[in-house]
Order: sequence, then C-alpha cells, then structure tokens
Amino acid sequence: MPDPILYIGNKNYSSWSFRPWIGMRMAGIAFEERLVPFDMGNGNPAFVKFSPTGKVPVLIDDGVTIWESLAILDHVSRANPASGLWPDDNARRSRAMAVSLEMISSFSALRSACPMNMRRPRAAIATTAAIDADAARIQSLWDECLAETGGPFLLGNFSIADAMYAPVVNRLDVYGFETTQASAGYMARMKALPAWQEWEAAGRAEPWIVEEDEA
Amino acid sequence: MPDPILYIGNKNYSSWSFRPWIGMRMAGIAFEERLVPFDMGNGNPAFVKFSPTGKVPVLIDDGVTIWESLAILDHVSRANPASGLWPDDNARRSRAMAVSLEMISSFSALRSACPMNMRRPRAAIATTAAIDADAARIQSLWDECLAETGGPFLLGNFSIADAMYAPVVNRLDVYGFETTQASAGYMARMKALPAWQEWEAAGRAEPWIVEEDEA
Repeated sequence: MPDPILYIGNKNYSSWSFRPWIGMRMAGIAFEERLVPFDMGNGNPAFVKFSPTGKVPVLIDDGVTIWESLAILDHVSRANPASGLWPDDNARRSRAMAVSLEMISSFSALRSACPMNMRRPRAAIATTAAIDADAARIQSLWDECLAETGGPFLLGNFSIADAMYAPVVNRLDVYGFETTQASAGYMARMKALPAWQEWEAAGRAEPWIVEEDEA
Repeated sequence: MPDPILYIGNKNYSSWSFRPWIGMRMAGIAFEERLVPFDMGNGNPAFVKFSPTGKVPVLIDDGVTIWESLAILDHVSRANPASGLWPDDNARRSRAMAVSLEMISSFSALRSACPMNMRRPRAAIATTAAIDADAARIQSLWDECLAETGGPFLLGNFSIADAMYAPVVNRLDVYGFETTQASAGYMARMKALPAWQEWEAAGRAEPWIVEEDEA
C-alpha cells in the first residue's frame, strides 16, 4: 500500500498543518507531503480540489479522505498502534484527548492576535485581557500536566497532545509572552526536537509573505 | 465501581452538555447526572468547583476528571467497547471523528446567532451569508454521509458523530432553516429518539430564562 498523502499549507504560517505533520514525523510514520501555498485574497481555491472543507490539512490514506488535524492524528494512531501517539495509560489518554480538544475549542483571542510564524523575530506585542487569559490558561494546563506526569512532554512521552500545542509553543515564544519556569522548559524541549527544527527551517526558507499573518 | 458523574448545564440551552448526554443515553451507559444551572451575569462560578475550564460538560469517572464533550464520549466509548459509539469500520470511524471535529472547529456564525433552545417555537430569523453558508455546509456534510452509508444516522447506526450534531438539529429546526429532503429526514429521526424526547421534555420544563440565548 502506498504511503498516505498529507496535504499541508505554508510551513511558516499553517498552524493546523504543523500539528499532524510533527505528530507523524515524531512517530516515524512514513507519508508523502504535498505542500499547497495559501492563495492569498482568493479564498484558497486550490484547497477545494482535495479538501472537503476547503482547508488544510487533509490526509488521503488508501482512498479515504480525512480532514481536521486531530482526526488525522487519531487515524494514523489507529493504523500504527505501536506509535505511542496516544498514551497507553487510559486516564492519560483521556487527559490527552481533553487537552487536545481544548486547543481546538478555545484560545480564540490568542490565536486571532498571534498567528503562528516560524520566522518572526521574538518581540512582545500589546496584549488584551482576553489574550493574557488564554496564555495563562495554556500555561496552567501545561504546568499541571507536566507536574502530574513528570514530563518531559505533557502526558509523559511525546503524544498527540504535544502535536496539538506545537503551534502555541511558537506563539508564546515569538510574541514574547512571560512564561512559567515549567512552561519555558517544555517549550525549549519542543523546539529542540529534530522534527520541529526540520519544519522551522523549511518555514523560514519559504518565499511567501502573508500580510494578514504578520502581526 | 460507582457510575461516572456527568455535570451538565441547563437542558434547554446547554448544547455542549446535550452531546455527551444523548450519546451516553443512546449507548445505554449508566451515569449520575448533576445539573448545575447557568449563573447568569456572574461568570458561572459554580462550574469552577468541578470544571478545569469553568465550563460544562465534565465527566468524573473513578476519580479522573474529563472535560470537552468529545473527550467524554471517546472516554466512555473506550470504557464500553460494545457500545458502538464509534463505528467499527475503520474508514467510517475516521470519518466520524473528522465530522465531529468539524462541528467543534467550525460553524461559528450559526452557533453564535442561533443558540440551541429546546422550547423555542419554530420561527425563521434574518440570516447572514455566513450563517447560510454554515447551514449549507452542515447539510451537505449530512447528505453526503447519509448517501454513503445509507443511514439511518450519519455513519449508519447512531454514533458519536450524531451526538455531536444533535444541537444543530435543534438549531436548523427551531430557527426555520430550509432543509434538503435527506437532512429533513435525518432531523426527524434524531428528534424521534427516546433520548432526544427525554432531554427536550426536561429542557422545556426548566424554569430558567437566559436572555442572551433567546435570539
């Protein structure tokens, strides 16, 4: 069977693409990457050709189309049960799912004001109470997980939960948020991963500038 | 082991509570229900006592706290593997997860303008292009799933995907949206479920009025 195909957007900007990409890379799952750059100001019509929602990422595996980053990660975890993408321990797995879903349902102030940007020089921005509350909740979530499991990642070993928060690690870093000691350590460990470094280097080397994502 | 405890908000309004509740009821999973009404204008401080996010629903199972409606449903599905809450077929399960996650990540225009309301008389409201696009995408998603699986529910038998869309069935109904024939049939089957009827009757009987949810 051929490797699954992962459609992604720009590595510099596409936070949702980064999530399944780093998860699959960390788990050693082979895939064919197809990068389709954002078509600015034109509704991203190129995505409609392969994506039911007109958004990235999308995985095509053995003829089945899977959209939504967490659905992709859950799918490849079931196809590769030894990957450890979900924690083996039942309570930790439920926690990993809750933490991953809170990322999807929440933090709209931070996500809207602070787009992921792999090449942005670290510089603080003016924040609002809502943005600060998002950054504080994220760190309290990280700190609690790390304290409970002992780390080095949120649920112990690297899991889907870490993949889901990878773009937020970039955001708290490049927009100069104050961080707790535990969160700073977690962010340093995430940024040191070879898979992170590979994605970041590729993002930095991209020629495309998306003005609306340059906060 | 005692039954898990499911904390929920008002049955008339709490769309996120409805999702795990109807999923667990349909699967015949025993649970202790604890309804905590929204404390209007006061930041819902009552929820903070049991919820890490200050929101409902929350499940407490054998000392483990699980938040986010889809994480609760995934947790009880693993604890009750014969429940059929996730489809057995691998491709259908991935589709169920993608469809469920699109519910969480999308449709903000519809969700914001048309709060779930079990006792609202059916009456059309003025819509925007964004609301109409949300309603159209939801129905195209439903219609495609129903055509592929033959129904009667989105992935064949009732699954977590149906639980996740239950509040949207109410919204498209009570706010008087035009529906395709396939979607109208799906909505009628959902509303006829005994678990739906039980929730709706309880919601209608509640004394609390939340002005901001009376669109």
